[in-house]
Amino acid sequence: MDKRINRRKLITLLGGVAGAGAVATLAARAEQVVPAAASPLQKVPWPYQPLDAEAAAQRGFDGYYKGECMYGTFEAVVGQLTEKLGAPYKDFPFWMMRYGAGGIKGWATVCGALNGAAAAVQLVSPEPDPVINSLFEWYEHTALPNVQVMNAKFAEIRSVAQSPLCHVSIHSWTKVAGKGPYSAERSERCGRITGSVARQTILLLNAQAAGKPVAFALTAQTKGCMSCHEKGGAVENIRTKMDCAGCHSPQLAKHPKV
Amino acid sequence: MDKRINRRKLITLLGGVAGAGAVATLAARAEQVVPAAASPLQKVPWPYQPLDAEAAAQRGFDGYYKGECMYGTFEAVVGQLTEKLGAPYKDFPFWMMRYGAGGIKGWATVCGALNGAAAAVQLVSPEPDPVINSLFEWYEHTALPNVQVMNAKFAEIRSVAQSPLCHVSIHSWTKVAGKGPYSAERSERCGRITGSVARQTILLLNAQAAGKPVAFALTAQTKGCMSCHEKGGAVENIRTKMDCAGCHSPQLAKHPKV
Repeated sequence: MDKRINRRKLITLLGGVAGAGAVATLAARAEQVVPAAASPLQKVPWPYQPLDAEAAAQRGFDGYYKGECMYGTFEAVVGQLTEKLGAPYKDFPFWMMRYGAGGIKGWATVCGALNGAAAAVQLVSPEPDPVINSLFEWYEHTALPNVQVMNAKFAEIRSVAQSPLCHVSIHSWTKVAGKGPYSAERSERCGRITGSVARQTILLLNAQAAGKPVAFALTAQTKGCMSCHEKGGAVENIRTKMDCAGCHSPQLAKHPKV
Repeated sequence: MDKRINRRKLITLLGGVAGAGAVATLAARAEQVVPAAASPLQKVPWPYQPLDAEAAAQRGFDGYYKGECMYGTFEAVVGQLTEKLGAPYKDFPFWMMRYGAGGIKGWATVCGALNGAAAAVQLVSPEPDPVINSLFEWYEHTALPNVQVMNAKFAEIRSVAQSPLCHVSIHSWTKVAGKGPYSAERSERCGRITGSVARQTILLLNAQAAGKPVAFALTAQTKGCMSCHEKGGAVENIRTKMDCAGCHSPQLAKHPKV
């Protein structure tokens, strides 16, 4: 097979990725239909009211030191709703979210702050997909952490993770910071990341609740990769929304021209 | 720095990784202590009774076609407990687990079947870490899917994921099966994976409830990598339990001798 594709084909495919937003929105609405036999509380979304994003930054940071990253973001969002609304939130088993620490029990898969935020969004949003997509893309490409917190011991050092994965995110930071993955500085950085993700989650949920658009776009480079490798592409051998270069930069350097 | 390390240093480090099990067990017990101000139901674990692992295989497969992978494993475990025990499970928002589909909304991070299983284990186990660690390691190195289900349309084709990540797991299967990542065959494979993970989760939970040991061991190759790159190693630049070669085989091929 010719490894080059022509410009027209590439533009068509990129248009397909961009246009997928409208279809995804419809799918997001359809998916919040729960099986008929379930009890009322098994259904989602549970009620939402606009929350304090700046308070969530500190609450997420503090929560990290109680139950780590996944617990921290989940509690910073859903704990606020518990205080505002009581039931049904007051009986949710918050401590369950402890499992996502370190990318699930130290396996370093998805960043626990993102895992907890995604769970919270699905619990409280009538249309969770745009919020979660926007949050993940923001996490990949924003210099983080980006919140001021009280009781921090070290100066804030930011890095761009270029991936939603725990061990890639941590590695990107340790390279910039010159601190080890088991250092107290790295731990505090993950506390600040928990606060940063909690804040951003609430900014997005509040925007959605106010009827504002919640945007999400792949980078031009990732769109380029996906124009061949994702659905409808000439190769079509992958399913993902992750930034490709975050992990595959060695392969990209050797990639044939398109 | 000399890139070789001597044999004594290597053995000491490998011993450190193996001996970490006892420390991890103590940490697992300590972590199930919930903040004092929480309501009784916010605490975990919720009560557990031995469940039917073989029934969970079919239930996970069927659940995948209702709410996809994360919902499928979670419901196959916690749905059984709801039928046995009623409260507090009957009011849990099961449909929240929909968020993990496709490695969280198609981002292809952690396999949703594992994400749902880990959430269920933390909810019901007095000592979740050994169960989750054993489950993840089993998922990485077992030819899956490995359960018989009714109403399947295609022949079962197995592959070894060598990673807990969605897109790596799917890619390993598409290479063996010769089917695309958006094919109906791949979708059915993920349904069977959901059933396989639900079954294995219950086998491990039942074993733990019966007082049997729940084992977990890294592969010799990954132990070798971690002897330098993980905590206490000469390089110490990573935090993970994932199989290194699942993603880093190109780097391993060029790695200096140790």
